[in-house]
Amino acid sequence: MAEFDLIAQYFTRQAAVDLGVGDDAALVSVRPGYQLAVSADMSVSGTHFFAEAQPFAIGWKSMAVNISDMAAMGAEPKWATLSIALPGVDHPWLRQFSDGLFACADAFEVALIGGDTTRGPLNIAINILGEVPRGQALQRNGARAGEDIWVSGCLGQAALWLQNRLGHLPLHADDIAMLATAMHHPQPRVRLGLALRGMASAALDISDGLLADLDHILQASRVGAELDWRALPLPRLQTPIEEETMQKAVLAGGDDYELCFTAAPQHREALLALSQQLNLPLSRIGKTTASPGLTVMNGNVALDIAKKGYQHFG
Amino acid sequence: MAEFDLIAQYFTRQAAVDLGVGDDAALVSVRPGYQLAVSADMSVSGTHFFAEAQPFAIGWKSMAVNISDMAAMGAEPKWATLSIALPGVDHPWLRQFSDGLFACADAFEVALIGGDTTRGPLNIAINILGEVPRGQALQRNGARAGEDIWVSGCLGQAALWLQNRLGHLPLHADDIAMLATAMHHPQPRVRLGLALRGMASAALDISDGLLADLDHILQASRVGAELDWRALPLPRLQTPIEEETMQKAVLAGGDDYELCFTAAPQHREALLALSQQLNLPLSRIGKTTASPGLTVMNGNVALDIAKKGYQHFG
Repeated sequence: MAEFDLIAQYFTRQAAVDLGVGDDAALVSVRPGYQLAVSADMSVSGTHFFAEAQPFAIGWKSMAVNISDMAAMGAEPKWATLSIALPGVDHPWLRQFSDGLFACADAFEVALIGGDTTRGPLNIAINILGEVPRGQALQRNGARAGEDIWVSGCLGQAALWLQNRLGHLPLHADDIAMLATAMHHPQPRVRLGLALRGMASAALDISDGLLADLDHILQASRVGAELDWRALPLPRLQTPIEEETMQKAVLAGGDDYELCFTAAPQHREALLALSQQLNLPLSRIGKTTASPGLTVMNGNVALDIAKKGYQHFG
Repeated sequence: MAEFDLIAQYFTRQAAVDLGVGDDAALVSVRPGYQLAVSADMSVSGTHFFAEAQPFAIGWKSMAVNISDMAAMGAEPKWATLSIALPGVDHPWLRQFSDGLFACADAFEVALIGGDTTRGPLNIAINILGEVPRGQALQRNGARAGEDIWVSGCLGQAALWLQNRLGHLPLHADDIAMLATAMHHPQPRVRLGLALRGMASAALDISDGLLADLDHILQASRVGAELDWRALPLPRLQTPIEEETMQKAVLAGGDDYELCFTAAPQHREALLALSQQLNLPLSRIGKTTASPGLTVMNGNVALDIAKKGYQHFG
């Protein structure tokens, strides 16, 4: 089967672009007054997902993690390219993968405008493009001391699922099902990111764990932070979980794809109203400090947070 | 070693962008009156290059094949993202790879603005962005019957190098050196692509072999073509090559990264002047026809061209 047939069969849809799949490049138009936001994420079998993972979930998540980067910038996701290496032509796999990919792309109005299909160990590389009004992007370097630190949704679910999957953490079946949904079908917080323009002073999405990712904001903004463990949004499970296990998952687990952002205290009311409006929990988990460093307080006791987050080449 | 250290050490340079590597996304500005051209190409060890290939050459070529897509559109290449899966952290390899990647990017004034580094079988996914004045892109669907068909440079060099490398074609050492340069350091024809705006009616770059790629123009433009084998630009080698071998390499070899384009006969003089100006051979190799199909004439004899070109999943 020819490369072009695979693209035509699985990865081509009508899209509202100037020129779509099928030429040397696609052509799109960026609106006047907007900047183009550009990001790329690669998903590898065995590193980002298990080889036996559902292809629909692989497709959804590969696209979702890219869209999440647009959310973190306050950008409107618009266009994506897909480069995929496949060990062979497995039609049922391709059908489910492309269904998952397009389910996510369609949910967030992203058009797949091009890419590449080739033979090789399974690898999914997506590049995403979005638009943001000039000067309004949510960057990492705008936090100031004395601001609130917020996170969306709830943290640690994907990490707990992984601990269960690896056999380290027995869980009730209902818990596994809930955590699996968080792991395999993350919901990029695009509406939140758009609404945070003009309110958040810094923002990012949590992919490597709250502490590791928050540290990027602190480094870029040259501030410190003190978090309140008791304010963190924990997964609500039927299975009792040891506190140590829960702390690792919530603080350093990663794969959350929730937004972490800073905002001046004056925005508290507006953010709580926004939480209602989006039907999405927003938790105020701490504050930025003039002195550098990152501490997590559990009442009067500082947690030992030596393990900062998942590192690909650790 | 952390993912962020690898990016900082090997893949971060100052670039003239609104916001470069280090946030959730890069920000760039597309000039008013321009469309954004978007393309992606993935290079896999064992499929696109030999595992023992020089890392400098892998870096150069991974970038070059993407820039070539911009050339084929008549677009000015501007920005690229790199997503790379690495089996481990091999510093000498990374140094040479990034040197090769940036050597090519710098030569064509492309800024690397983001990407992803992860663990996995070696895989290099690049997404390239360029600018083209609105409505002036060189597409595949604009050819009309009675136009000239042109190619730049010389064809078949990479394919002959591959035949030698696989042990099928003994060659003089000087020939091998020349062909290796064509294979490993293709020169994207960006200046040609820009100059062809307003002259070429259709264009693409030759990656899968002249016949297979030209066929895309013919299908998209709904015309046929008759090529003159004797007009094709063959490699000049010291080693005598059988005509059958040469025909396969030139017509179906692929990996040429020369431009193939159509233009009305009125542009002949201007194209020959352009060839002089760019110091780049431009060969008029045939003409488009109203009747569909693709034939290659060797004098009065039509060549048997059943083998149309390399297919990744053939």
